Amino acid sequence: MSKAISYAAPSAKEPLSFFQFERREVGPKDVQIEILFCGVCHSDLHTARNEWQNSVYPVIPGHEIVGRVMSVGAEVQGFKAGDLAAVGCLVDSCGNCPECSDGLEQYCDQGVYTYNSPDKHTGKMTYGGYSNQIVVQEHFVLHISDKLDLAAVAPLLCAGITTYSPLRHWKVGPGSKVGIVGLGGLGHMGVKLAHAMGAHVVLFTTSPGKAADAKRLGADEVVISKNADEMDKHVNSFDFILNTVAAAHNLDPFLALLKRDGTLCLNGVPEHAHPSPNIAHLIFKRRQLAGSLIGGIPETQEMLDFCAEHNITSDIELIAIQDVNTAYERMIKGDVKYRFVIDMATLNDQA
Amino acid sequence: MSKAISYAAPSAKEPLSFFQFERREVGPKDVQIEILFCGVCHSDLHTARNEWQNSVYPVIPGHEIVGRVMSVGAEVQGFKAGDLAAVGCLVDSCGNCPECSDGLEQYCDQGVYTYNSPDKHTGKMTYGGYSNQIVVQEHFVLHISDKLDLAAVAPLLCAGITTYSPLRHWKVGPGSKVGIVGLGGLGHMGVKLAHAMGAHVVLFTTSPGKAADAKRLGADEVVISKNADEMDKHVNSFDFILNTVAAAHNLDPFLALLKRDGTLCLNGVPEHAHPSPNIAHLIFKRRQLAGSLIGGIPETQEMLDFCAEHNITSDIELIAIQDVNTAYERMIKGDVKYRFVIDMATLNDQA
Repeated sequence: MSKAISYAAPSAKEPLSFFQFERREVGPKDVQIEILFCGVCHSDLHTARNEWQNSVYPVIPGHEIVGRVMSVGAEVQGFKAGDLAAVGCLVDSCGNCPECSDGLEQYCDQGVYTYNSPDKHTGKMTYGGYSNQIVVQEHFVLHISDKLDLAAVAPLLCAGITTYSPLRHWKVGPGSKVGIVGLGGLGHMGVKLAHAMGAHVVLFTTSPGKAADAKRLGADEVVISKNADEMDKHVNSFDFILNTVAAAHNLDPFLALLKRDGTLCLNGVPEHAHPSPNIAHLIFKRRQLAGSLIGGIPETQEMLDFCAEHNITSDIELIAIQDVNTAYERMIKGDVKYRFVIDMATLNDQA
Repeated sequence: MSKAISYAAPSAKEPLSFFQFERREVGPKDVQIEILFCGVCHSDLHTARNEWQNSVYPVIPGHEIVGRVMSVGAEVQGFKAGDLAAVGCLVDSCGNCPECSDGLEQYCDQGVYTYNSPDKHTGKMTYGGYSNQIVVQEHFVLHISDKLDLAAVAPLLCAGITTYSPLRHWKVGPGSKVGIVGLGGLGHMGVKLAHAMGAHVVLFTTSPGKAADAKRLGADEVVISKNADEMDKHVNSFDFILNTVAAAHNLDPFLALLKRDGTLCLNGVPEHAHPSPNIAHLIFKRRQLAGSLIGGIPETQEMLDFCAEHNITSDIELIAIQDVNTAYERMIKGDVKYRFVIDMATLNDQA
């Protein structure tokens, strides 16, 4: 056991505040990481405030973790003290099911999330990355390049892989016409990644003010999705549309833009159901409505390597841990371009 | 031009009745077919009664057509007088678009349906198979085996291909666990075809009385879909589920039965929307909700050859054309096992 410090939500109604706890002993397969930066994901806020009705307090959020290895267990082969390392949304899975065998641990029924998930090592819940250190088994620790800005790498661990995985799974590449719906934390990564994969990228937004930024990030076109005339010009033309907007909205205008055999993939579970999609849009062009969840460990490493090769990071606003509650309020308003990242050194200031 | 006789709906509110009209001249690429049998599809009823608000009267329904070639145009290579021949739901398409190039004419934006579709040859609407003869360009005429019961072949042209195409597209075969929802005209063909493809077939029905028949037709298991306990036993286990039920119903219990990466494919557009599906079912296992429409011409020929090879036809009730209005009423009640087929010789009795 080793002492650790963090920011934690003591309850659904209280702001996050300084919290001391203990990390488990470093086991033979474990990697202990000093956390340098941690991204702020909307899921952190949902969980801190018990918006998914499954929070066990205290909640220490954070699953976009970048840091440096402090120590490793005796059986660890791939990491040594001093290496850069990263941890994403997952820290454990069964290791035996078809999903785990296929390197798709995110779909394992016994997957353990990085925070607020039952932790078989401690018997408590997992505690996330708003912390000075973390102990994670090697299989779930990723390598990152020292060529990229480490703070801006952090959001790749959730926002990056959540968009990369479906783009790869549905074989986006040169010649693909790809839509990205929404220009937030996920959407801005989707634009960058789809562009780097060689696709023709169209960003859909309800905010005309985002057009210039979308193009800077790599969009070839920007369509204001509330404008039916603009939408009509793209009917039957997309191979794939990745919809990063979780708020309930009508999916039909996007389904209608897909080519025959095209897929509309959703990244977010809406709090209130989307209007029921018009099945005719599916039947008359053999289109598909699908969903995708983060990504598996091998694919997360592939994504990190891809980002290093293509010099891709997240656009971020670096904050002190003491500003995380304010950041949550700004995130609710969409007032962030495009991801808050906590400089975890500021946590030590507090200790 | 040649004189033809038929049963037609004079309006949405009148029963079908005897109707004389003219078929077009047999052009150089055309095949003229004496219609021996024509299946009765639910679409026939929808169109006869203008339930899709697009009917132009008179409507001559019928797109499950089996007959014998009477004459062929000068450029026809694949058929000669006396050959058996069949026509399904399509009689024309643009021939140039990606869909046509891929042999998926059913998804061509300029596809022409066998009845109630603008006919560029005549300037009127197309007239279907409740008739003594039809003139169709060779590309849309299929070969059928003389080894099968011709009357029972007719429903393959719609009910058969509509289930065959998605089963093939989603690669059903030995080792697949496949669900078929609904045991009607489409569902009973889905069970037979999926069984013949080597899949483990589970029939979902709300009617316990259909279990024995489903097993006779090829189902390995029958699940009463209203029984949550029975359904629970199959969670996360299906590769593919083909849902032939068009009536509005909750799709979530079926989505939950799919494995990771599994697909629920819908064959019918509901008159009233299904309840909005729970997107979590899609996201947490990367499942897909899809649709599929009939099948293309090459695949329809492949299906007919497959059925000949595996000795598959529809279970039918043969009727006289004079009984078609009664048959419609029985079809509405689900009182048919599993497809009415009109013996078109009975039309000549009337002439």
